Amino acid sequence: MNAELLSSWRDGPARQAIVDFVERAGGQDGSAAAAVEERVAVFDNDGTLWCEKPMPIQLDFILRRLVELAQAQPELRERQPWKAASERDYGWLSALIAEHYAGNDTNVKTLAAGILSAFAGMSVDEFEKRSDDFLRSAQHPTLGRRYLQCTYAPMVELLGYLEANGFANYIVSGGGRDFMRPISQEVYGIPRERVIGSSTTFTYTSDGPGGTITHRPEADYLDDGPEKPVRIWNRTGRRPMLAAGNSNGDIPMLQFTHHASKPTLRLLVVHDDAEREFDYTTGAEQALKEAEAAGWTTVSMRNDWTTVF
Amino acid sequence: MNAELLSSWRDGPARQAIVDFVERAGGQDGSAAAAVEERVAVFDNDGTLWCEKPMPIQLDFILRRLVELAQAQPELRERQPWKAASERDYGWLSALIAEHYAGNDTNVKTLAAGILSAFAGMSVDEFEKRSDDFLRSAQHPTLGRRYLQCTYAPMVELLGYLEANGFANYIVSGGGRDFMRPISQEVYGIPRERVIGSSTTFTYTSDGPGGTITHRPEADYLDDGPEKPVRIWNRTGRRPMLAAGNSNGDIPMLQFTHHASKPTLRLLVVHDDAEREFDYTTGAEQALKEAEAAGWTTVSMRNDWTTVF
Repeated sequence: MNAELLSSWRDGPARQAIVDFVERAGGQDGSAAAAVEERVAVFDNDGTLWCEKPMPIQLDFILRRLVELAQAQPELRERQPWKAASERDYGWLSALIAEHYAGNDTNVKTLAAGILSAFAGMSVDEFEKRSDDFLRSAQHPTLGRRYLQCTYAPMVELLGYLEANGFANYIVSGGGRDFMRPISQEVYGIPRERVIGSSTTFTYTSDGPGGTITHRPEADYLDDGPEKPVRIWNRTGRRPMLAAGNSNGDIPMLQFTHHASKPTLRLLVVHDDAEREFDYTTGAEQALKEAEAAGWTTVSMRNDWTTVF
Repeated sequence: MNAELLSSWRDGPARQAIVDFVERAGGQDGSAAAAVEERVAVFDNDGTLWCEKPMPIQLDFILRRLVELAQAQPELRERQPWKAASERDYGWLSALIAEHYAGNDTNVKTLAAGILSAFAGMSVDEFEKRSDDFLRSAQHPTLGRRYLQCTYAPMVELLGYLEANGFANYIVSGGGRDFMRPISQEVYGIPRERVIGSSTTFTYTSDGPGGTITHRPEADYLDDGPEKPVRIWNRTGRRPMLAAGNSNGDIPMLQFTHHASKPTLRLLVVHDDAEREFDYTTGAEQALKEAEAAGWTTVSMRNDWTTVF
């Protein structure tokens, strides 16, 4: 039902696989319908639901915070990562990613420590306000649009199509859970309790009416790779029937999306559209191989989507 | 609406506070209604939704597992906590609780280590099956009923009344999340994704179609005391409007249930009914004081409920 919602999808194998899956799940092909409570669909966010280049949107948010901290505490300006953030030294940041792929995480750890300390002691209410303000005002550096307009229209249509067919959609992001929550309902139709993502640990302090929950400078977990199935289980207590991702970190989540006796769909978004978005496979090499080996459905931005944004 | 669902509640201040709260939340008193997505209600489980004496139901489940392990590995029978479990040495277990209240947690740690190891390496699917089997078959040791019949009828009515008025109910238990999930929908009408509770860490292994999530012998977190507001935030991203508990470990969750401009209700179930259930305040001393100081609504099992089970 409602396949007309997929209006930005070209007729082709990806669109057909989606419609076939939804009709099988709903029993419209004559097979037994999956119980509505079993219809769980999970979506990576960066590079799957919205643009992640030239850098993840949240990294821009964090770098601005590092600049703010370095302005308040000048001694930080001589130390990484505050130095690179203050000097807009994208060279240091790019090198760090190249170093990571080469197996050297020294500077990744330096950045991670800076990120973890960036919001330490901040209440979840204050963090929410900052994330909300940033996402509603900041512009993408090259696409000439606001970040909130960098969601992929065909994927938003897919979320709506699934919801119209009884599915509960979840975001399962390597990015920060609380970073996305203020806008997830508005831009994806996904309520905040269905946002799964990385998080620091928190402290609850009974410091007045209602008390306060504040960020600690410590990772609770990084919701990536094999942690994604674990966090999906923690939150939902179920195996998904549909998973969509775009990178190596999504492989375990896509593998976990398996049922012996229910239809499943594994989607891998392929960034092959230099004209309308970006063209890259770095960070997705294994995922592309796995998709071919395991028969996952690849989604070509260039060929399968009439519109990107 | 639907206050007739509270048929096991005697007319009195507790019932009245519940009805007043729900009608204010729904705007039936002429004030602005709370948005449906804000209507989050959280419930402790042991001693709040079902009976926790003479021992928490899950402890019985765990002790049986320890006996099973000791039968398979005789050398365990000489070591605690397998020894006490095998010998049904409730003295050791009771002493441990008394020691805990006296500030000595040596044996508590011994028990905790045994509990954490009890399901190490077990898949979440196997754990679910064992929990489900246990809860559907085991008998309460003194009440002459099955464990699944040890839920408090007035609290189950309250869950239904809240749901009929647009609330999303969550369990927020110090007990194990995955222990309760198999039966939460059936006995409470609470779907498994709304069960918050303690958990070990897990490992995801890509060991065949779908892979496997297994228990590790390590606590991820103990969902008690100040961890309860943190876990509520993690799962829901909201402050509740209603919280119900019965012990000191519920104090932070009840304090967290506060809104400057929305109605709230904090319920504390008081076990004062030796005839129909149990009569005890151990472990609830501070909570009772706090309820009086902060004006929380106490629920007397003896006076406010026409039926307990």
